[in-house]
Amino acid sequence: MTLTPDQTAEIDAARAAESRTLRPVSPGMEARLYTAHPVLDHGFVRVIDYMGDDSAIVQAARVSYGRGTKKVSDDAGLIAYLMRHWHSTPFEMCEVKFHVKLPIFVARQWIRHRTANVNEISARYSILDREFYIPAPENLAAQSASNRQGRGEALEGDEAQRVLDWLRDDATRAYDHYEAMLGQEGQQGLARELARMNLPANVYTQWYWKCDLHNLFHFLRLRADPHAQFEIRVYAEAMAEITADWVPLAYAAFEDYRMGGAQLSAKGVKVLKRRLRGEVVSQEDSGMSKGEWREFEGVWG
Amino acid sequence: MTLTPDQTAEIDAARAAESRTLRPVSPGMEARLYTAHPVLDHGFVRVIDYMGDDSAIVQAARVSYGRGTKKVSDDAGLIAYLMRHWHSTPFEMCEVKFHVKLPIFVARQWIRHRTANVNEISARYSILDREFYIPAPENLAAQSASNRQGRGEALEGDEAQRVLDWLRDDATRAYDHYEAMLGQEGQQGLARELARMNLPANVYTQWYWKCDLHNLFHFLRLRADPHAQFEIRVYAEAMAEITADWVPLAYAAFEDYRMGGAQLSAKGVKVLKRRLRGEVVSQEDSGMSKGEWREFEGVWG
Amino acid sequence: MTLTPDQTAEIDAARAAESRTLRPVSPGMEARLYTAHPVLDHGFVRVIDYMGDDSAIVQAARVSYGRGTKKVSDDAGLIAYLMRHWHSTPFEMCEVKFHVKLPIFVARQWIRHRTANVNEISARYSILDREFYIPAPENLAAQSASNRQGRGEALEGDEAQRVLDWLRDDATRAYDHYEAMLGQEGQQGLARELARMNLPANVYTQWYWKCDLHNLFHFLRLRADPHAQFEIRVYAEAMAEITADWVPLAYAAFEDYRMGGAQLSAKGVKVLKRRLRGEVVSQEDSGMSKGEWREFEGVWG
Amino acid sequence: MTLTPDQTAEIDAARAAESRTLRPVSPGMEARLYTAHPVLDHGFVRVIDYMGDDSAIVQAARVSYGRGTKKVSDDAGLIAYLMRHWHSTPFEMCEVKFHVKLPIFVARQWIRHRTANVNEISARYSILDREFYIPAPENLAAQSASNRQGRGEALEGDEAQRVLDWLRDDATRAYDHYEAMLGQEGQQGLARELARMNLPANVYTQWYWKCDLHNLFHFLRLRADPHAQFEIRVYAEAMAEITADWVPLAYAAFEDYRMGGAQLSAKGVKVLKRRLRGEVVSQEDSGMSKGEWREFEGVWG
Repeated sequence: MTLTPDQTAEIDAARAAESRTLRPVSPGMEARLYTAHPVLDHGFVRVIDYMGDDSAIVQAARVSYGRGTKKVSDDAGLIAYLMRHWHSTPFEMCEVKFHVKLPIFVARQWIRHRTANVNEISARYSILDREFYIPAPENLAAQSASNRQGRGEALEGDEAQRVLDWLRDDATRAYDHYEAMLGQEGQQGLARELARMNLPANVYTQWYWKCDLHNLFHFLRLRADPHAQFEIRVYAEAMAEITADWVPLAYAAFEDYRMGGAQLSAKGVKVLKRRLRGEVVSQEDSGMSKGEWREFEGVWG
Repeated sequence: MTLTPDQTAEIDAARAAESRTLRPVSPGMEARLYTAHPVLDHGFVRVIDYMGDDSAIVQAARVSYGRGTKKVSDDAGLIAYLMRHWHSTPFEMCEVKFHVKLPIFVARQWIRHRTANVNEISARYSILDREFYIPAPENLAAQSASNRQGRGEALEGDEAQRVLDWLRDDATRAYDHYEAMLGQEGQQGLARELARMNLPANVYTQWYWKCDLHNLFHFLRLRADPHAQFEIRVYAEAMAEITADWVPLAYAAFEDYRMGGAQLSAKGVKVLKRRLRGEVVSQEDSGMSKGEWREFEGVWG
Repeated sequence: MTLTPDQTAEIDAARAAESRTLRPVSPGMEARLYTAHPVLDHGFVRVIDYMGDDSAIVQAARVSYGRGTKKVSDDAGLIAYLMRHWHSTPFEMCEVKFHVKLPIFVARQWIRHRTANVNEISARYSILDREFYIPAPENLAAQSASNRQGRGEALEGDEAQRVLDWLRDDATRAYDHYEAMLGQEGQQGLARELARMNLPANVYTQWYWKCDLHNLFHFLRLRADPHAQFEIRVYAEAMAEITADWVPLAYAAFEDYRMGGAQLSAKGVKVLKRRLRGEVVSQEDSGMSKGEWREFEGVWG
Repeated sequence: MTLTPDQTAEIDAARAAESRTLRPVSPGMEARLYTAHPVLDHGFVRVIDYMGDDSAIVQAARVSYGRGTKKVSDDAGLIAYLMRHWHSTPFEMCEVKFHVKLPIFVARQWIRHRTANVNEISARYSILDREFYIPAPENLAAQSASNRQGRGEALEGDEAQRVLDWLRDDATRAYDHYEAMLGQEGQQGLARELARMNLPANVYTQWYWKCDLHNLFHFLRLRADPHAQFEIRVYAEAMAEITADWVPLAYAAFEDYRMGGAQLSAKGVKVLKRRLRGEVVSQEDSGMSKGEWREFEGVWG
């Protein structure tokens, strides 16, 4: 992560300016506010603002006049019930705003979550910084042999070196030319909105990204999942830690019912019931395709 | 507006509990928080929570590291520019949550705004209160003679009295039977989810309604408009006043470019340009339909 | 279901007017088009238009130049894979438009699904028909003793009769007064937008409702579920049958992975694994709350 | 535009397969179906499917039982009325699905329109084609001197040549290395999801993009506007022509009330009224900022 002294000073100033409010406050989130949590080689995630806490979920579910909290144990039980029964609207009553610095190819996956509000820096208007994502050696993974959209072990030796050199050299040259196209010393220069097309997909961009808690959980479920690409998963993991500090009861329910749970098809339910009765069931006998059976065995052995 | 002593006490307690926060604070909104602003005979609007202020709009537009504010005059200029050019995403970075008590027929119009988050009290689960909207005499309007979906002058005399009696008597009888259906003294009673169907559309419901500032402005433009039905317009007007206190710069831009502005068709632009050159233009000569011409003259004479 | 001779004639005319098209056609849906499928005592569901079929899902997943279909068995496998892995976007590529006649209290639940497009008849502009939902005797259910938002057995004898009389009489009287308020013989009459507030929540309304297949499946999963209120479930069931005719492969995958499947929490996975190893697990020992345990036993015994 | 013989054959096959349908048919759109309309040097727009026509808008506005059309002139009048009064829901009742080939930097702007359904080819799964956007000489525009996000005249001479050489050379080298990283002859190769990060933002991607007519008009208003970047505007213009063939009445209303119209602020209305009374108004006297005044004069002289 690279912050200029000015940026660091702005963040420090924001953390120093305390105010009084009548709104609900999440102590875990106040401790996180504004600080840049490093992700990848130059990226970060920062919380810019938030609305609500665990009790706001309870309060909305009850359409309360007051804070609506009785005992923490009651709140935990109600929140677990809401999560288990897919009552999503009370979770929509909390909101969070992040400032994220991330490579463009990660941003292109991320933006597919359409239920968020986004302000991205405009490369039509501004000049992007000279910062590219170059994978650490242990993340320079080979194509998976079994999964067309997965990755295997890290490349090694000459091949790893060659790939790293290409990534670095091509990005550097592309950025040099991007800068040169923009014009120097009295030259008019190519329009910014055109020059940016020379930049590779590993250049960093930045945005403000705002989302309600229900949709944040949906994002985390898909992107903090082991099948998500490593480069977006590390962002999701950083955000998951922040969320656990923000709304600890809701996050615990999310972990139990979403992240740690399992989904069974009608065929899967039947197979498990037969197994519970002591039957041995084979793929041929399960009604499942080979692919589905493999995934089923991955969970149930 | 009818609040029980318990509800009043809960609101007072919420207004008494001040905390410290690092988040941006809107003084105008802090003064509004939790208080129930009366609307119609039994309804209200209360702010439950908010996120962001005028400077949050500027900050998002600039994807800033710090608060992003320089001078108020700069902020006002940027906010006006964003509003004029329909750059809606920075306004989406502010969020507000209301608690509203409103008649069901108003709720049915309101819910058509799909970009909000809503938690409504469930009449499957709870028993609704004995409260109906009965129009004040001056709002007991006759059908408009010219506009199939508008209203004219207030009814008077016997007709007014007869209508008011029907509204009151039918609502009272419907509620009496609703209560009776729910069962008493050892009777099992009809399921709540069925009994509610006997209640008329002027019975009050309640919800938490959360929305970003861009979509709130869209709601206000349609519902605080003179063509909106009076019974929803009064809610929109109460919310508009609150919004003016919350984000004064954004609200001023909204008033200038949306509420107070005018929209011209290509034909309208041509007619105005001819008029500016001194021509007298008639409807026949304008290319407009009679209806459009009438609306055009309503603004431009 | 009540259709006027004019309405029947319009539907017949629409079914008689065949055209030629280059678009994909679903034979199962063509057989359904326009016909009113009766639901409840006066309601119906009709398909007005549709876009796409099973092969459109495959085609979108592959971003194909042509129809993209190879063998039906390949398509079925890919569609099952997409459903299993929550790849929702290909299912969004099919669209359907229904015309629905339904009681207002059902419409109020239904409209909470925000991802659809809706045009409802306006009671500000039009006069609603004299049609109310009155439950059949076997659906006049008592409040559930165990579930605050559920229903139990049907009411019987005097209580049933009394409830039915109230529902019928109150609706009739409310409609009589609604009509009378609207004015007769030279009277101006109350504005329609006001008079409608006298009508009860079991009066029928109508709308056009358009939705993509992914969101339709989401609607069906929640509303064709045994926990949904009977009066909306019958609509969902009628739509589910239509959907099965429209996209048979996608519907089969939906039944397998959504309707017939089961969801397990992290705790539920652990309990099942212990049981599969032959352990006997009690609620106290499961980490689950009593409510969750009851639901878990409901599926797994 | 570059289509392989296989792709051309698939398109021809799709255009040759006519079916019978009971659905409404738009003759103008049938003539367009499947054909690739070239945009930029390698891109295209193709209609893959559509739902509805002008009469579907009328039918939805009336919640009709039949086609709802009376006379074309009535339909035109109603459609114009709906457009003028921002009654957007009837326009949402038409739907269209495009297949688009476009540079990534254009896709990044386009995807910000969140109300569409999108399936993009996955560069985690597939290998992208060796095709980049290189501007034609007349579109190799310099940075605007007056507008930080605009462009001026085309670059000329040596500077133009140097820029074109950089764009071509850097893209070619990046693609060569992308291919080489993916591994050859027995090498495992870098994971596709990583290798793609070496590709520049002018490489072409493809997607299926589906949208309702209301949101398509919104897209066209912003992207077919003279202030939109040329490289996305040419796509919007191609889609606008297709839309004019699909729903001619709705498109005519869109041109009149949106594309060709003008928006006035409250200040703008006041200034025009003073001018109509013969007053001469200056910027200082208008209440407008310099920027707003310049834009105002751009329309009104």
